[in-house]
Amino acid sequence: MVDLADAARRVLDAIRPHIGEGKVATYIPALGNVDPHQFGFAVAGIDGTVHGAGDQDVRFSLQSVSKVFTLALALSRGDEAIWRRVHREPSGTAFNSLFQLEFEHGIPRNPLINAGAIVVTDQLLAETGDALGLLRDLLRAETGNPDLDVDRVIAASESETGHRNRALAHLMASFGNMRNPVEQTLDHYFRQCSITVSVTELARAGLLLARHGLQADGSRLLSPQDARRVVSIMLTCGAYDAAGEFAYRIGLPCKSGVGGGILAIVPDRCAVAAWGPGLDAQGNSVTATLALGTFGSITGWSIF
Amino acid sequence: MVDLADAARRVLDAIRPHIGEGKVATYIPALGNVDPHQFGFAVAGIDGTVHGAGDQDVRFSLQSVSKVFTLALALSRGDEAIWRRVHREPSGTAFNSLFQLEFEHGIPRNPLINAGAIVVTDQLLAETGDALGLLRDLLRAETGNPDLDVDRVIAASESETGHRNRALAHLMASFGNMRNPVEQTLDHYFRQCSITVSVTELARAGLLLARHGLQADGSRLLSPQDARRVVSIMLTCGAYDAAGEFAYRIGLPCKSGVGGGILAIVPDRCAVAAWGPGLDAQGNSVTATLALGTFGSITGWSIF
Amino acid sequence: MVDLADAARRVLDAIRPHIGEGKVATYIPALGNVDPHQFGFAVAGIDGTVHGAGDQDVRFSLQSVSKVFTLALALSRGDEAIWRRVHREPSGTAFNSLFQLEFEHGIPRNPLINAGAIVVTDQLLAETGDALGLLRDLLRAETGNPDLDVDRVIAASESETGHRNRALAHLMASFGNMRNPVEQTLDHYFRQCSITVSVTELARAGLLLARHGLQADGSRLLSPQDARRVVSIMLTCGAYDAAGEFAYRIGLPCKSGVGGGILAIVPDRCAVAAWGPGLDAQGNSVTATLALGTFGSITGWSIF
Amino acid sequence: MVDLADAARRVLDAIRPHIGEGKVATYIPALGNVDPHQFGFAVAGIDGTVHGAGDQDVRFSLQSVSKVFTLALALSRGDEAIWRRVHREPSGTAFNSLFQLEFEHGIPRNPLINAGAIVVTDQLLAETGDALGLLRDLLRAETGNPDLDVDRVIAASESETGHRNRALAHLMASFGNMRNPVEQTLDHYFRQCSITVSVTELARAGLLLARHGLQADGSRLLSPQDARRVVSIMLTCGAYDAAGEFAYRIGLPCKSGVGGGILAIVPDRCAVAAWGPGLDAQGNSVTATLALGTFGSITGWSIF
Repeated sequence: MVDLADAARRVLDAIRPHIGEGKVATYIPALGNVDPHQFGFAVAGIDGTVHGAGDQDVRFSLQSVSKVFTLALALSRGDEAIWRRVHREPSGTAFNSLFQLEFEHGIPRNPLINAGAIVVTDQLLAETGDALGLLRDLLRAETGNPDLDVDRVIAASESETGHRNRALAHLMASFGNMRNPVEQTLDHYFRQCSITVSVTELARAGLLLARHGLQADGSRLLSPQDARRVVSIMLTCGAYDAAGEFAYRIGLPCKSGVGGGILAIVPDRCAVAAWGPGLDAQGNSVTATLALGTFGSITGWSIF
Repeated sequence: MVDLADAARRVLDAIRPHIGEGKVATYIPALGNVDPHQFGFAVAGIDGTVHGAGDQDVRFSLQSVSKVFTLALALSRGDEAIWRRVHREPSGTAFNSLFQLEFEHGIPRNPLINAGAIVVTDQLLAETGDALGLLRDLLRAETGNPDLDVDRVIAASESETGHRNRALAHLMASFGNMRNPVEQTLDHYFRQCSITVSVTELARAGLLLARHGLQADGSRLLSPQDARRVVSIMLTCGAYDAAGEFAYRIGLPCKSGVGGGILAIVPDRCAVAAWGPGLDAQGNSVTATLALGTFGSITGWSIF
Repeated sequence: MVDLADAARRVLDAIRPHIGEGKVATYIPALGNVDPHQFGFAVAGIDGTVHGAGDQDVRFSLQSVSKVFTLALALSRGDEAIWRRVHREPSGTAFNSLFQLEFEHGIPRNPLINAGAIVVTDQLLAETGDALGLLRDLLRAETGNPDLDVDRVIAASESETGHRNRALAHLMASFGNMRNPVEQTLDHYFRQCSITVSVTELARAGLLLARHGLQADGSRLLSPQDARRVVSIMLTCGAYDAAGEFAYRIGLPCKSGVGGGILAIVPDRCAVAAWGPGLDAQGNSVTATLALGTFGSITGWSIF
Repeated sequence: MVDLADAARRVLDAIRPHIGEGKVATYIPALGNVDPHQFGFAVAGIDGTVHGAGDQDVRFSLQSVSKVFTLALALSRGDEAIWRRVHREPSGTAFNSLFQLEFEHGIPRNPLINAGAIVVTDQLLAETGDALGLLRDLLRAETGNPDLDVDRVIAASESETGHRNRALAHLMASFGNMRNPVEQTLDHYFRQCSITVSVTELARAGLLLARHGLQADGSRLLSPQDARRVVSIMLTCGAYDAAGEFAYRIGLPCKSGVGGGILAIVPDRCAVAAWGPGLDAQGNSVTATLALGTFGSITGWSIF
């Protein structure tokens, strides 16, 4: 039997010497102000108990980790149509950008890269009228934090500097793969990325996937097949240009964000969240990556 | 001695059986309403005399032919800096798009493709505050038509459907190669493309380049070197994906537009404009291409 | 406790209705002669016991599955230099070809695509003088079949039709990333791919990786880190253009070949081999893919 | 009336201060031994009189200039089929390589880049059995030098280092666009490039195109349309990655080679050859480029 509280403590001990390593993201100016000497870790057991360590209650910017939950919401509508608008294969380093999107006629490679997540948000917005609202409601319910919300300063900063995301969205629009006006979809997209959570909250929300689609209140959001779909995409596409390296170091399905957070799922067992603001050259948190690798080894739950 | 009036008549005779051939552009909805059974031809001798034939006074949408004059205006400021923002080599069929722009770090291949012309407009706008106004003034002066103006319906239609141009501009912005807000530059760009002229007016305006940079009033707009630069770019980059075929058929420096107009320059001799709304598969006017090839043969001024 | 003998039987039962599905590979003519109505399955427990089902002793062409063992041999030399000659990230659908290799200066994306495996063979050949011999010896030892060998007809057929592999190798040579003459390396490469094995033999050989680098005779071939490296590359890069779909369907580190075989590894537990000649559109065996997915579900060893 | 003898003298005077500029090509080792302090210039009037200057009788390696004559030979067979195997548009800087060829299914962009010239040689070889022999015979007849031949040392050096050409040829073969064994075609191709000529000889041979397809003995090799085709391809595709810059500097249809030679055609008037071993960054001879630009200005025969 794995003792998760003990595992959390051991992870923190292992990471402590590395706290502060890496470089805080600056491409969104508002993200650059975070104190790099922070580290939080939390594991939520399948029964809902959360064991945290370090800065477990400090909130950070979800950024791309939000893509996992937006995808879950889109799939929860039982709508297979999304798979005509986005593929589900890795994108390949350095070609994850406009190039591939153009050659593949405006269909992004997977829902966890920016272009793909924009399409998923666009679909959710077209179907429901409020992509941000749905995500916020889901995360409030699953994290147990009714005040969870968007950081408006970061959202504004994202929007201001989001030229590449605008290029992606307009390119998709030119191929007929946008259903709402580009700026409207991007407004939801930028705000989704700017939601703040703590690792405690994020681990708790991740149980949605560890439980194969069941929400905290016991109701079903996703079919088991769709939950497996989300987790399998995390496994092969969750770390941008470093999917291979990530698999080697961690051996679990993960999604990272430039806010420094990473969410990992161990189906039937737990959801794990780690956070440290300092990033490596690929944009993944140095300490969170280390923490999840350590957790996989300690528990024996890594695929290796 | 070449008799230009006679040449114009002979060109019309040769083209008559082909009038109506090709497909009117529809990608900008407002362009699709033009009657395809029209054809205009005009040659302006170096002395300023214009000899026209057919629908020589019907106005059509300049579209990409405008890029030649915007480039001339940007160069007229004696500012070499523009060449740090745009290259001057052919783009290669089918790779003239976002792909090449991304791999070349947001520096477009030449000023006569869309991305390049957007950069030139952006430069002119940043330096002068009114890129459209300058172009309109120049064309009014050189065509001799003080009422020359933008077709607002077409400009609005261009803007509405301009997703690919927006993708290009935002991609350049993401590389730091835009000086004004994207929508502001595009507003000038779309309106420049939507200026209407007749072949008579266009041929007259083309004399600016046939005279190596001298304007109709005898003042110098461009240095001879810069005029040669513009004309040489027309020669190798004036026909999008069909530069080779164009060179073969015409053998003169040209610039075509999807409005069906083509401008050709014979330095020291004349400027020639032809117009027919029906386009071939590469987007070049069928009758205007034929007309300029015929003109080159009749006069012996083709390079071949 | 999982009963592997029972699992093998249940897999066969589940697959039986699908035997014969898919299309036998024909791009190498000699591969096209295989009877499609065959299916073999075998699982080798960590203790070395093998449980087979169906055509468990029929031999087939290893093809790309051989790449896993060639990589293991190259790494066994403790030589990190190979990682200067090949990356270890997924390649991205449809761009796994010369294109990516050219843009990345002749450094292939990973050792399990053709270009990467050619580099690994080239390295092994340069270091030892006999890449094929080493692989054959390793597989003879690990499969327990002293007569295991190359199918010369298939090897000749591969060589004859191997234009794309030659293009890859010469492109790498032009970037200085080949140490032996191209034809010499390719000769070893083609023959490695043409080795024949049964699923019983392949499962047994796969234990090398399930045991983190220990050979059948108890000696260490690979460090645990290098064994983990090989397995992690299988997880993200083992299925060409269908890595994402493979992860979803199977949830285990795998490597497939166009001969219809697939090898999967469950570290510390077992190695599994499945074979059926009929391939799906991505070149992966229909029945072998199904079989491994079924095995993952039955045993609960899939990552999901 | 232009005095060609005088023009040749004036060109030499203008170039003299620049002799020795540029870097001798070294990518083919045997080319690197040439003394850079040489310069030759010759113009052959339409009547056959040749006026030379400088090192007008020193022989150099034709290299890519040979592509013009191989193309003429292929077209001389009245065989339009070659245009199903090669396009005739510019290739675009930096994308002239395997990348474009792969995306365009093994059909090279034009006959004056390496891939295209290999296809033309392959076609000629398949149709006649001796591509090299035909080219040598043609050049012997047109240059008036019955001893004109291949430099075997250079041919061997080309073959030895020709990995990229092999990659191109095998890639085309993989698309079914090679009719002979790759090595056989390349053997002819490498030897064609290794033919040596003087500028006097090259200018004389160029009259074939200036006379719209008539050979020195008055017989017709090419139809006027095909001659125009060759010359138009020179205009847009004759200078690899510097077509635009070349057009600007020279304004005449040209073909350059890394041996330092350039051939230019002025239809109905003359053929011009210049040679200097020092190359600029794009691989075009510094002094030969300057010389042809000067010649165009002096004579007024530049298109500008």
